[in-house]
Amino acid sequence: MSAARLTAIYHVTDTPQTIAARAKAIAVEQSVEMPVAAITAQHVLDDIVGEVQGITDLGGGRFEVRIGLAVATTGLEAGQLMNMLFGNTSLHPDVVLHDVEFTDEMFAAFGGPRHGLAGLRAMAGAGTRALTCSALKPQGLSSQGLAAIAAQMAEGGLDFIKDDHGIADQAYSPFAERVPAIAEAIAQTGSRTHYFPSLSGHIEQMRRQIAVVRDAGLRGVLIAPMIAGVSTFHQLVRDNPDLVFMGHPALSGSGQIAQPLLLGKLFRLFGADATIFANHGGRFGNPPSVSRALAEAALQPWGALKPAVPVPAGGMTLARAPEMLQFYGKDVMLLIGGDLLSAGDRMAQEAAKFQQTVMN
Amino acid sequence: MSAARLTAIYHVTDTPQTIAARAKAIAVEQSVEMPVAAITAQHVLDDIVGEVQGITDLGGGRFEVRIGLAVATTGLEAGQLMNMLFGNTSLHPDVVLHDVEFTDEMFAAFGGPRHGLAGLRAMAGAGTRALTCSALKPQGLSSQGLAAIAAQMAEGGLDFIKDDHGIADQAYSPFAERVPAIAEAIAQTGSRTHYFPSLSGHIEQMRRQIAVVRDAGLRGVLIAPMIAGVSTFHQLVRDNPDLVFMGHPALSGSGQIAQPLLLGKLFRLFGADATIFANHGGRFGNPPSVSRALAEAALQPWGALKPAVPVPAGGMTLARAPEMLQFYGKDVMLLIGGDLLSAGDRMAQEAAKFQQTVMN
Repeated sequence: MSAARLTAIYHVTDTPQTIAARAKAIAVEQSVEMPVAAITAQHVLDDIVGEVQGITDLGGGRFEVRIGLAVATTGLEAGQLMNMLFGNTSLHPDVVLHDVEFTDEMFAAFGGPRHGLAGLRAMAGAGTRALTCSALKPQGLSSQGLAAIAAQMAEGGLDFIKDDHGIADQAYSPFAERVPAIAEAIAQTGSRTHYFPSLSGHIEQMRRQIAVVRDAGLRGVLIAPMIAGVSTFHQLVRDNPDLVFMGHPALSGSGQIAQPLLLGKLFRLFGADATIFANHGGRFGNPPSVSRALAEAALQPWGALKPAVPVPAGGMTLARAPEMLQFYGKDVMLLIGGDLLSAGDRMAQEAAKFQQTVMN
Repeated sequence: MSAARLTAIYHVTDTPQTIAARAKAIAVEQSVEMPVAAITAQHVLDDIVGEVQGITDLGGGRFEVRIGLAVATTGLEAGQLMNMLFGNTSLHPDVVLHDVEFTDEMFAAFGGPRHGLAGLRAMAGAGTRALTCSALKPQGLSSQGLAAIAAQMAEGGLDFIKDDHGIADQAYSPFAERVPAIAEAIAQTGSRTHYFPSLSGHIEQMRRQIAVVRDAGLRGVLIAPMIAGVSTFHQLVRDNPDLVFMGHPALSGSGQIAQPLLLGKLFRLFGADATIFANHGGRFGNPPSVSRALAEAALQPWGALKPAVPVPAGGMTLARAPEMLQFYGKDVMLLIGGDLLSAGDRMAQEAAKFQQTVMN
């Protein structure tokens, strides 16, 4: 019996003459990383060396290469999984990690979202409607300054508010001071709005931040897995199954790991209940097809994992909300930051208008 | 007095007509990430919003954009620094983070290599010569199988041996079993060869691995900062100043963060004593100019930081050693893995030949 394998799917720019050798080279690079001829152990040749499972010509000088990687090499550990999927091959500009097919053992080991779409809707009392979210900005404000903004958004009745991902543990609004101040300001409005503070640093620092989050009576956090490291992210999910984890795409790159795979599938596998990504037509250059594929990756039936909520963002406006609801349907969280902040004194009213767009 | 700023230098593909607006957009994205017109706090406008310091036409539709980012936004924390340098802008395919100019406060806060080139040479008793290293492979072997290979390399007199970066904490060679077995096998040869095991997981797991490393009497480790997260990497450097940290480029991408910056400067800033990178003419596609720039970034006088040892690698052979010494001079560590492993029974003799190339 051969060893269990996952399938990593790469898109490679190459020629029909050389793609077969190239595919083998990637299979070796992502497994034993040495000349196969020099390996004498039969079980390594049989069960550890990557195997090319298929090559498809996609046209235009691009090829889809399917490579079977031994699950054992991942140690069922999130960081090592990234390493085996793309560690050294990420150095090649002509290879995209396009998709991955996991085994049931891997779904069970990583476990996916603990709350997911249904959990977030229940928290918000949202029935089956779409969800709303905004971002606290700008960094540089004091904790009280941010709390005042949060209060206005909460008065508007938003479902969720998160820290801007740039807000960490800076001197002008230290985490341990900011989080309770903002939580308190929201609570005083009487709104059921949930606030997700942004975690930063390594896991020990994040555990201290999570203690502050719990003390403030909050039920979720924001994390950027590609900065924190996916090992850190996944361990925190495991250890805090009652908390919601919202994934942020910072440092995730422009597609060398395809965004539907990274933000839709991998973040979901590791436990993101919601995943923020750059929507088409905003400040980032994604076409609608990437948004569509990403939302599907987050939501589709996949092992026994709960669906993660797609959170299209990046320069979205209130004016675009109807069109976005048309595009995504109701299984979505709309995230509008700057456009609400621009409303100044009228922020609570604009937030209420935003909330209204999903209540119909 | 205005706030202290670092300068982030981006290379942007754009047009002469639009680059000024684009540069401003990046400055906003990497600081407050919201419409500047909606910011009412004067100190945020003065001290937090990114400022365009200069734009240079590089020709061919590329522009160098210099942006001053407030040091305060980084919280002097490694992960947050990456976030502020490139978090959201990494999502843009047409922007490269090319270089960064740090302040003295940042050099002091991060501290750089604790040992660096001089420290590694002293450990190896190497005088002023170049250093040698090889990699233990293939993964899938038992701890004893890897130990037998390590013994042969040590018999050849190599200065350093590291785990293949794919070797983590897998069932076939668990860290806590493998590391003492390999250390013991090397010790029995009587060689002074140093062995650097590969860390994996999050910081708590890595601290346990480091305890194993210390128990085995070893003095250094291998780490892939872009998988572990730079916050984890930097904290471990801080807490273990007596250990050598060798950086591995896994998951560092093909240049969206320029390799000389990421592997040469940023890893050095966070404390890499040696930094492995893809040499030109090997399995990866770098031109010699990148190798040159990377080695210079690692070695050049830079604040008060110690030089980090450049470690060109990725399919290097014994036959290329003289040419590499010609290219890099003596301030280098040559890393040859697969080519030595291919020698089979003659591995110790080939390792000795490799060692001889740097002894002259």
